[in-house]
Amino acid sequence: RINGDRLWDSLMEMAKIGPGLRGGNNRQTVTDEDGEGRHLFRKWCEEAGMTMGVDQMGNMFMRHEGTDPDALPVYVGSHLDTQPTGGKYDGVLGVLAGLEIIRTLNDLNIKTKHPIVVTNWTNEEGTRFAPAMLASGVFAGMHTQDWAYDRTDAEGLKFGDELERIGWKGEEKVGDRKMHAFFELHIEQGPILEAEGKDIGVVTHGQGLSWTQVTVTGKESHTGSTPMPMRKNAGLGMAKILQLVDEIAWSHKPDAVGAAGHIDVYPNSRNVIPGKVVFTVDFRSPELSVIEDMEKRLAAGAKEICDEMGLAVELEKVGGFDPVKFDEKCVTAVRNAAERLGYSHRNLISGAGHDACWINRTAPTAMVMCPCVDGLSHNEDEEISPEWAAAGTDVLFHAVVETAEI
Amino acid sequence: RINGDRLWDSLMEMAKIGPGLRGGNNRQTVTDEDGEGRHLFRKWCEEAGMTMGVDQMGNMFMRHEGTDPDALPVYVGSHLDTQPTGGKYDGVLGVLAGLEIIRTLNDLNIKTKHPIVVTNWTNEEGTRFAPAMLASGVFAGMHTQDWAYDRTDAEGLKFGDELERIGWKGEEKVGDRKMHAFFELHIEQGPILEAEGKDIGVVTHGQGLSWTQVTVTGKESHTGSTPMPMRKNAGLGMAKILQLVDEIAWSHKPDAVGAAGHIDVYPNSRNVIPGKVVFTVDFRSPELSVIEDMEKRLAAGAKEICDEMGLAVELEKVGGFDPVKFDEKCVTAVRNAAERLGYSHRNLISGAGHDACWINRTAPTAMVMCPCVDGLSHNEDEEISPEWAAAGTDVLFHAVVETAEI
Ligand SMILES: NC(=O)NCCC(=O)O
Ligand SMILES: NC(=O)NCCC(=O)O
Repeated sequence: RINGDRLWDSLMEMAKIGPGLRGGNNRQTVTDEDGEGRHLFRKWCEEAGMTMGVDQMGNMFMRHEGTDPDALPVYVGSHLDTQPTGGKYDGVLGVLAGLEIIRTLNDLNIKTKHPIVVTNWTNEEGTRFAPAMLASGVFAGMHTQDWAYDRTDAEGLKFGDELERIGWKGEEKVGDRKMHAFFELHIEQGPILEAEGKDIGVVTHGQGLSWTQVTVTGKESHTGSTPMPMRKNAGLGMAKILQLVDEIAWSHKPDAVGAAGHIDVYPNSRNVIPGKVVFTVDFRSPELSVIEDMEKRLAAGAKEICDEMGLAVELEKVGGFDPVKFDEKCVTAVRNAAERLGYSHRNLISGAGHDACWINRTAPTAMVMCPCVDGLSHNEDEEISPEWAAAGTDVLFHAVVETAEI
Repeated sequence: RINGDRLWDSLMEMAKIGPGLRGGNNRQTVTDEDGEGRHLFRKWCEEAGMTMGVDQMGNMFMRHEGTDPDALPVYVGSHLDTQPTGGKYDGVLGVLAGLEIIRTLNDLNIKTKHPIVVTNWTNEEGTRFAPAMLASGVFAGMHTQDWAYDRTDAEGLKFGDELERIGWKGEEKVGDRKMHAFFELHIEQGPILEAEGKDIGVVTHGQGLSWTQVTVTGKESHTGSTPMPMRKNAGLGMAKILQLVDEIAWSHKPDAVGAAGHIDVYPNSRNVIPGKVVFTVDFRSPELSVIEDMEKRLAAGAKEICDEMGLAVELEKVGGFDPVKFDEKCVTAVRNAAERLGYSHRNLISGAGHDACWINRTAPTAMVMCPCVDGLSHNEDEEISPEWAAAGTDVLFHAVVETAEI
């Protein structure tokens, strides 16, 4: 078993970097805080005898040698970046659980045949630079590196420039590494495990995602002196489209979700009718056909709403991935580990996207989940118990070590 | 008659300060650009032999002596500040028309009995610091100066500090000046004059206004892994309230307008269900009872919408004034001037708020309006013709000089 206290201490130590305003974290990707978090993680890994590789997307690969240096490594990890008002565990747990596995192997003086590489993937959250899981996506060949470098944040800064600025653009070519397998531990970010009192989620599938950026264009004009019939209110168009998004998602109950988290209004002045609104619609489902249906209905419905109001509308897909089925053998390793350790468990479909969803395309992959309080995530109040963290890490430890062979 | 070319040249010269991105202006109140505009206006006035007074709200009073220095001055003016994406005429025309009156009096070597004071009122737009017409409101005793100083912008900067920073906080006590009368020329900002081919609007009344800041609070959570029934989506609550605002305004057709120009979403991340949305509802009507009805229905409707969705809602009135009836004698002076000069004219109710609406409470006041293209204002494309500007200024000239007595 792993050392739950040590794991928890490291989680609390990392959470001091980029503290939020209400007890959570604001350690967004390729900010100074992200750089500081990476240095701490590197320091801990080197203290545990690991060696570092960094690729041109800033992905960190901390290697623990195996007895057979020619054997393909088993990879394990997640991400250290957070939402602007994020929690202390989303991503971080999966990275520090990887470190805890190595520390435990060192304690027990156990050597695996395959090397084990603990990974921190850059920009998983996608909040500062869309899309999410950007660097694991480049690793898996889903995006080109140049395209990724060109992603801009709300201030117009480029991902590639910011990565260079914080000093974490490595030399290594992205995606060259071959993996024996990849495992990721993550908090569920949903309510199922806690509600059913289960310790462990064995993740068999992941929902697919579609992000559509919608730009509604009307005409800026005076809120007082523009008669109602002459208005081209882009804000009102946005309001009607948001309700449509909600209706579309409910119509596929319980197999779909939909909402807009990002909304920018221009010029955003109290006495100016909005001339332009840009917002991003997030649709998800475990069924590809459902995602496609939702996208189609959004495009048609948004056009109808805007035509009727004399507004222009443009839709652009800014992120997305198909539903995922994880590797049978790796999933079985996770389930067997939970069984062997006596933890209660159930199969889960991941509601969120994860780096594992991309890596699954290039290597046998599986995920372990642990509960989180009230299913709450992407919120500073995100909470888990030390016992949940330890149980998840125990299962990860057993699955990884079994796959890496003693 | 005034010199239309000279007036137009000054308008174009002032428009070079704080240029917008699309040919308009961004010279928001108490910014460096506002300071620069004030210096240019002061220079022009001093070249015309006027002397400056500045009060503690930064209101500028440029005095042209009368033959009877004890006679109460006739005031004339408007505002030099603009919207973030504003036009070149909204406010500016009324200030520079005041200057053009003095230049014309100098040209013609005419002396009036009453002094004439050309005024630039601070923060008319209310876009950076709510409410609109802030400094004329303090002048008229509607707000205390300390309250005005404490107004904050989106960055948390205070109005009083910013006024001091740009060097335009004067010594003079606010509101001490007694006026014989006040006249303001302004572009209509609506479509009526142009549609009817009228040169001049004789403004008899002003619509009342009500600004309600609405804060909808839900729960930030993950857009992917939070099941639809567990969501508390503040963005969706906002969307429903925006539609209610539109319905309420239409229900009072044609006596009311309503919209929200300002909307801030928190944390504004693509994969976080909005936990909080703050927006400002702008309702207007020439009838006080209609405004009161709209406010009541907004409060009740927003509560009902939010209760049903498990959201919290708070409403705060952040600006407002009652409908205005301008001074009979001053209005007649404007109408007679238009008649005498042979300009076509009609009575108007101002759709927008103006400094004249507050000053009307402390002094006999009237307004002159000229058309603007497509009724468009609060937009960088706001446009008027040099002929319209000259006609409006001619009428203002005659009304002011008649009231100031030769
Ligand atoms: N796990 C997680 O929150 N990932 C961010 C990508 C997503 O929105 O699903
Ligand atoms: N004239 C003008 O645009 N004033 C700003 C105050 C308002 O919103 O009516």
